[in-house]
Amino acid sequence: MGEKVVLGVDIGATTAKMGYVDRDGKCLSGSASVSTGAQQAADVFFKRLYESAESLRAELPPGYDPVGIGVGAANGNYYKGTIECSPNLGWDYVDVGAELGKYCNIPVSVTNDANAAALGEMLFGAARGMKDFISITLGTGLGSGIVANGEMIYGADGFAGELGHTIVDPNGRECACGRRGCLETYCSATGLCRTVEELICNTNIPSELRGVSYDALTAAKVSEAAHGGDALALSAFETCGETLGRKLSDSVAHLSPEAIILSGGMAAAGELILAPTRRALEKYVFPVYRGKVKVILSGLPEGNVAILGAGALAWSVLDKK
Amino acid sequence: MGEKVVLGVDIGATTAKMGYVDRDGKCLSGSASVSTGAQQAADVFFKRLYESAESLRAELPPGYDPVGIGVGAANGNYYKGTIECSPNLGWDYVDVGAELGKYCNIPVSVTNDANAAALGEMLFGAARGMKDFISITLGTGLGSGIVANGEMIYGADGFAGELGHTIVDPNGRECACGRRGCLETYCSATGLCRTVEELICNTNIPSELRGVSYDALTAAKVSEAAHGGDALALSAFETCGETLGRKLSDSVAHLSPEAIILSGGMAAAGELILAPTRRALEKYVFPVYRGKVKVILSGLPEGNVAILGAGALAWSVLDKK
Repeated sequence: MGEKVVLGVDIGATTAKMGYVDRDGKCLSGSASVSTGAQQAADVFFKRLYESAESLRAELPPGYDPVGIGVGAANGNYYKGTIECSPNLGWDYVDVGAELGKYCNIPVSVTNDANAAALGEMLFGAARGMKDFISITLGTGLGSGIVANGEMIYGADGFAGELGHTIVDPNGRECACGRRGCLETYCSATGLCRTVEELICNTNIPSELRGVSYDALTAAKVSEAAHGGDALALSAFETCGETLGRKLSDSVAHLSPEAIILSGGMAAAGELILAPTRRALEKYVFPVYRGKVKVILSGLPEGNVAILGAGALAWSVLDKK
Repeated sequence: MGEKVVLGVDIGATTAKMGYVDRDGKCLSGSASVSTGAQQAADVFFKRLYESAESLRAELPPGYDPVGIGVGAANGNYYKGTIECSPNLGWDYVDVGAELGKYCNIPVSVTNDANAAALGEMLFGAARGMKDFISITLGTGLGSGIVANGEMIYGADGFAGELGHTIVDPNGRECACGRRGCLETYCSATGLCRTVEELICNTNIPSELRGVSYDALTAAKVSEAAHGGDALALSAFETCGETLGRKLSDSVAHLSPEAIILSGGMAAAGELILAPTRRALEKYVFPVYRGKVKVILSGLPEGNVAILGAGALAWSVLDKK
């Protein structure tokens, strides 16, 4: 038996990315990707995924044996090892362990991508040594993973930790989930762009963003404008952080975490989002928690959060055995 | 060594109540109480508490030995075994284990009263066999205790689970904590009475409660009026449950519990509060959780929740050893 390594797989809406991760959170291979598009059947997809993983295995240094596979995916269920009702992938219900078990017999674990990111922070990133923290991924939506008492919180059904769907305003912005006013419609890359439109409509603040259509607008453009001093872009970040900090004060009243860790594309804006979030959190939080909760950036390398998180899932399951 | 029993102590704002509790959650003695008023020094209070416990011990059936003490108190800290910054008791910082250790050498555990109630439900009440649930105590305020993965959530500082201080409306009702719009200003015995006043002011609904002053109003009177068909009292419960259910949908998005358990004086109103809470929870909750979360009443005998909860704390600590 050689050195141990696990395969981390992140299944996104358009691409599944994978890489081999050692116990210290180092990617020992390059990363490979397989398209998830075109609504292909799950068995076809997982066969291609396995073939791609086998090719990638050739890149491992000599003497390494894969001992587990971790899979992060939207609607991944940890308890059942399934991906359920995944609109992007067109799958109603897929038993991931059974699909991959056709080709190999090492343990396969599944969770949603935001939970995987939280495990990545705990094993390899900004939450090393912490037993109570919340990880927030600010991407197209807002994903989250909660760790308490040193354990991932999966809840009764395996789907705990959907802070993106807590409600800011029951009469607020329409959300893709069919309700109104969900946190992710305000705080996410998309939420930031919607806030820019709100400020364009409600204020007379001059801005270069008034010349950009909503379809052409991205969080990166808003960030660039803000860094250049654009007052409306700065105000959009301020509004976004204010809402995030206020809602996170509710999360703190539930869980009293040591830290809240921000990752994802929008977190790359750094202090633009951190500063107003911290300010609002301290303003709105129940006094007993004031000054106690750190709001910090991910400790994982930006491009690799998803693969390292999926790898961390595999390691955390192996560690329990 | 005889049969084992623990002492459960609930320290309230005016009275500390205690009783001996066996491993099945049966109170084997009567209960005794000691006044906590008059801002007495902590060492004086705990001496009297111990003397009272010793007298009560005479009521135990023969052959029972106390093996632990559990103490529930507002601002009780599980990690440190302390009661901190307790405005009602006038104590800044009391090491409860050290105080009781002067008189006996069995393990002493401390937590806040709402967490103790949750442990009571888990060991002896409606949450037996559950690993993920939230317990809500609707008294003068709104207390809460969270259990996930079969463990009480204390958070990084020992003060997790303050759902009464999540924010319904940042511009809303003044709360005793110094902020505005906290959940307990809407959902609690006091919150119900405040809602009655709001309805008296905002509507023309006829009501016998229009003849009652705010000082004379109690949740029991509102409940009595509602049971008698008073439209305004019924509307107050409806409003209260709507707000509670909506905010609990956020709690579900954090924790995905199997059940939410209501106790405390206001829970005695039964369906008057359960029905609108359930309705609003199902309306506002993220679709993946719909139809999954039970909202039920406490399984503990009304008068004994606090003592049984404190006893459950002692047992849960002993069980871990």
